[in-house]
Amino acid sequence: MSETVSALHFSKVVIVGVGLIGGSLALSLKRAGVVGTVVGVGRSAASLDKAKALGVIDEAASLEVAMQGASLVVLCAPVAQNFALLHALEPHLQPGTIVTDAGSTKSDVIMAAKTALGDKVAQFVPAHPIAGRELNGVEAALDDLYVGKKVVLCPLQENSRADVAAVRAMWEATGADCHVMSAVQHDAVFASVSHLPHLLSYALVAQVANAEDAALKLDFAGGGFRDFTRIAASSPEMWRDICIANKDALLREISIYESVLAHLKTKIKEGDGAALERLFARASDTRLKWGAARTAANNVEP
Amino acid sequence: MSETVSALHFSKVVIVGVGLIGGSLALSLKRAGVVGTVVGVGRSAASLDKAKALGVIDEAASLEVAMQGASLVVLCAPVAQNFALLHALEPHLQPGTIVTDAGSTKSDVIMAAKTALGDKVAQFVPAHPIAGRELNGVEAALDDLYVGKKVVLCPLQENSRADVAAVRAMWEATGADCHVMSAVQHDAVFASVSHLPHLLSYALVAQVANAEDAALKLDFAGGGFRDFTRIAASSPEMWRDICIANKDALLREISIYESVLAHLKTKIKEGDGAALERLFARASDTRLKWGAARTAANNVEP
Repeated sequence: MSETVSALHFSKVVIVGVGLIGGSLALSLKRAGVVGTVVGVGRSAASLDKAKALGVIDEAASLEVAMQGASLVVLCAPVAQNFALLHALEPHLQPGTIVTDAGSTKSDVIMAAKTALGDKVAQFVPAHPIAGRELNGVEAALDDLYVGKKVVLCPLQENSRADVAAVRAMWEATGADCHVMSAVQHDAVFASVSHLPHLLSYALVAQVANAEDAALKLDFAGGGFRDFTRIAASSPEMWRDICIANKDALLREISIYESVLAHLKTKIKEGDGAALERLFARASDTRLKWGAARTAANNVEP
Repeated sequence: MSETVSALHFSKVVIVGVGLIGGSLALSLKRAGVVGTVVGVGRSAASLDKAKALGVIDEAASLEVAMQGASLVVLCAPVAQNFALLHALEPHLQPGTIVTDAGSTKSDVIMAAKTALGDKVAQFVPAHPIAGRELNGVEAALDDLYVGKKVVLCPLQENSRADVAAVRAMWEATGADCHVMSAVQHDAVFASVSHLPHLLSYALVAQVANAEDAALKLDFAGGGFRDFTRIAASSPEMWRDICIANKDALLREISIYESVLAHLKTKIKEGDGAALERLFARASDTRLKWGAARTAANNVEP
């Protein structure tokens, strides 16, 4: 941690939705020593009790109570809940409090924030940490989930420089690297490299599961199937919300994908090996270089 | 190793195509002590020299020379070469020699063998070891690649029981488990759980690579992209051949997949979250159970 970070302190952080993402953020801020009290807000009392027992949050409270004197409020619930949450917290949002989020889509939450918060939208700094596990829930939370990960900030014209800097500093305290881009650009990028692959992986597993000989097929599925379908074990509720929240960009990517697949289908039908090999080689070359660059940068598996 | 396996001995095994699959088979048979001499046959002298230097094969020879006195010939070259190889070896195929293969598709190699070998097709026992790595070439060969892996045998009516038993015993000596099914069933199963996922993964990476903002997209691709696209680093030549060799079964699976994707697209367009969540939940549930069963059976990562 640099000197800048150690000077950082949030006296009261409110985490709305204490699951993998929110819980890991709470633990990371505690580990970095930049937070006074962490208050958890959530739909399930049992889950909040668990978060408290695990030391992830210091106390649980209603949204209204939690908002009083909060330095920072982080929305970590499924993205579909953001509008209702922003609407509910608006009357209790005090001038000095910064609100941010951890959602995988940005255009939709900005639209929701502008509607729900009105002029107070200046206090809302949209963000997206690029991190996850196949496991969900507060039990899966890790205090180093964000180390070396990327966080995208999509600041609004209305935001003050100080508020954006505070959100950036908070994420840097977790060990993450922050990048700034527009919400439109963010949503197009993630539709392509995250949302579409999730959709495709779910579709393949659903197809196998619905086959008459599903048991035989699953019995002979190997390492390729394992890797390709790992993301199909992700939370159905979360991915339902993301698909709908990022509808426009995702539909564009699906349409392009359909045309790539149609092209491959034609080439297989025609027995055009050269065309198939050309596309496979372009993909293989891209993937190998990506893996090598990633390994070199982060010392992680390709 | 059981007593049956230790009584097994092949005095001369010919490996045609000494790459990952053929090289790993050679090393595994040596480790099990069930082989006298391993002779390598291949297109590249440099690659055969490397295989010899690595101790994977004992000697390199032309196909014609290698066939003399061979107990067992294993075709491990890309599947598109099988017809030419079978045609070339037929004049030199002696009565006591068993021929088998390691190809990922079975109907096509059986058709090729019937045409190229005529009555001698009785000596050809089709097989498919379900193993692989992203790495190719003899340098990637491992002496335990097949331990705990599945091998599918698709015996012909013409095969003798003794020859099928010998091929089975050979694979069991490598630590693999053998299963018998028809070639048609085999090709349908692998089109679904292996060939289609490879095609889909190549397609996604090609789409990202061809995007105008490819560099930005690849920069923000995370763990989901990594797992989903790991198989897109596979050999373009091998997968070109498999797609064409298993054309009929693969085209059927692509058509089904197109309809699943079209369904998801419609549901996203309509904002029908319940329908999306239903399909995602079915996939997620199937994948979680599959991973848990696989971990329990093999003590491997889900």
